[in-house]
Amino acid sequence: MPDPRGEFARIAALLQRLPRGERVVVGPGDDAAVLRPRPGRDLVATTDTFVEGRHFLRELVTPSEAGRRLAAANLSDLAAMAAEPCWALVSLAVPATWSAAACETLEHACASALAAEGAAVVGGNLSAMPADVGRLVATVTLLGEVEAERAWTRGGGRAGDVLAVSGVPGSAAAALALALWGAPPSWSRVPDELRRTFLAPACRVRLARALAAAGGVHAAIDLSDGLAGDLAHLCEASGVGARLDAARLPISEPLRAAARALSAHAGQERGLLPAGEGALLTHLQLAPGDDYELLLAVDPAAWARSAAEAEQAGAPLTAIGELTAAPGLLLRESGGAERPLPAGGWDHFPTGN
Amino acid sequence: MPDPRGEFARIAALLQRLPRGERVVVGPGDDAAVLRPRPGRDLVATTDTFVEGRHFLRELVTPSEAGRRLAAANLSDLAAMAAEPCWALVSLAVPATWSAAACETLEHACASALAAEGAAVVGGNLSAMPADVGRLVATVTLLGEVEAERAWTRGGGRAGDVLAVSGVPGSAAAALALALWGAPPSWSRVPDELRRTFLAPACRVRLARALAAAGGVHAAIDLSDGLAGDLAHLCEASGVGARLDAARLPISEPLRAAARALSAHAGQERGLLPAGEGALLTHLQLAPGDDYELLLAVDPAAWARSAAEAEQAGAPLTAIGELTAAPGLLLRESGGAERPLPAGGWDHFPTGN
Repeated sequence: MPDPRGEFARIAALLQRLPRGERVVVGPGDDAAVLRPRPGRDLVATTDTFVEGRHFLRELVTPSEAGRRLAAANLSDLAAMAAEPCWALVSLAVPATWSAAACETLEHACASALAAEGAAVVGGNLSAMPADVGRLVATVTLLGEVEAERAWTRGGGRAGDVLAVSGVPGSAAAALALALWGAPPSWSRVPDELRRTFLAPACRVRLARALAAAGGVHAAIDLSDGLAGDLAHLCEASGVGARLDAARLPISEPLRAAARALSAHAGQERGLLPAGEGALLTHLQLAPGDDYELLLAVDPAAWARSAAEAEQAGAPLTAIGELTAAPGLLLRESGGAERPLPAGGWDHFPTGN
Repeated sequence: MPDPRGEFARIAALLQRLPRGERVVVGPGDDAAVLRPRPGRDLVATTDTFVEGRHFLRELVTPSEAGRRLAAANLSDLAAMAAEPCWALVSLAVPATWSAAACETLEHACASALAAEGAAVVGGNLSAMPADVGRLVATVTLLGEVEAERAWTRGGGRAGDVLAVSGVPGSAAAALALALWGAPPSWSRVPDELRRTFLAPACRVRLARALAAAGGVHAAIDLSDGLAGDLAHLCEASGVGARLDAARLPISEPLRAAARALSAHAGQERGLLPAGEGALLTHLQLAPGDDYELLLAVDPAAWARSAAEAEQAGAPLTAIGELTAAPGLLLRESGGAERPLPAGGWDHFPTGN
């Protein structure tokens, strides 16, 4: 497309200054990139789009943070397949409200976050939005490789498998809920540790590669629809049910404090969150929140080894339940009572995300 | 991302009903697609975004036509590398002004146009736009394969190479200019043949593959910045100059008639187009117009064979000039005088495209 704003040439030039990456035969600047796959590997491809105003608010998220989170969303999909990131294409549709410098910052942050995991930006696209659109839309397509036939899927889970998660699901949602609590939205109310889970999510690619090398993971999914929603996807694809143990869901002090703060104030007032600290905590842990963590179904015989591998990779796993032959999802409450989780996942957590 | 409109599940289901494609180990519905590259091939990757209101106007282009043109834009990039299309990912950011049915139609048309050239949709993404955005943004990433080390690039042209184009560049721009001429915009003023070049552009993948198999093409680019602009890109990458012969630029009766009609009316009135039928015709032929045709630099010794191959592939090539050792782009006018083409390509043709 012709460049109606001239300045975009700067961003194209940025792409050509980025590290070239491995096995890149033709990089940015031609009609397409030419890449050299390794023999004996399968190619893994994912794409994620961030829409300003839906996936991030400019008041809360800088261009650099948006770029990093966009990279994280794509990297997380590759981690869920146990693939190594290799190459990426980045497309921006840019409104007049974004300067070329802001776009360049976003692209650069995204490219750097990808490069830290081994992926090079090999191409992309820049379009100007029409004058009546004030929101940026950014799409990354990320390509990776995995040993042939060894990609994890959602569909390999078996009854008896240990259900495990990385990180502390709910942290990103709690951070965002606290930031959105007052007007104007602000991070000043959010403890650093929690804020980081949202703005600079950890990447689980190395964890996944280490676990895949050790063997024993039967199925995997990344948390984008929340623990309850993504567990439902995994169970459906695997043809099994699951029992989650509320008492075993990982928790951090900042997450507990956030649940307390939110239950005391914003929740009931705005009608967005369930009342009561306990219910609110469970909601944060199970509802969608863009944690970019992994949910795994692990062979019970391999669980101890997997947990040790994860510990060594600096990304501990927590066992939170098991897959069951009986269909349906159950949540075992702290008291021991069991109640069904909604089949379609947890209610959407209406954070503007 | 959670689906805030529910209906999107329909579109996701559509993706899973599409033909699965070859060497697709894991198709749509997991965190990422898993694909099986062929040994001895390089991977070729491109991405193109269509923004409603910039790349297409809803008054003129149906969802189905938009989907087909989006496929064409990506296929054209692969043709310019002599690659075979294999797999695609399709991302839509959807405003409330688009129904799920309209999105489904666009996706289906795009997928069908890709499938006709051998590529399967293996994944994608759906996001809702925020309420203040009324325009659709659609991104396709297309992956293909080419024999290792055999991809065409922009950079292989040599002084003395024959410059050749497929099709009749300028046709799409002429069609759009005629359609935009009055209010409301309408195709009723546009002859069928011309209108087809815009709404259902021919695909040059087979032409490229046939020419690549025969050998002799040194450099290639697809026409997205117009003949003058893309020739400048090719010359810069190849480190050569070029001389174009105005009298040899391909022309069709509908294109000539369009130049006549536009010069008699809309051009001068709206100040968008140069005055005079001849100048206007040259403008249409050289300025950006999204023809999705190929510009090739062909070894003179292979030119006769290449032209015959193209004829046989049903996509005749026209020799329009040659690459020169002297830098700079020259246009030889019908009278024999030579004048420089602007270095940065032709002026952008302000059609809203």
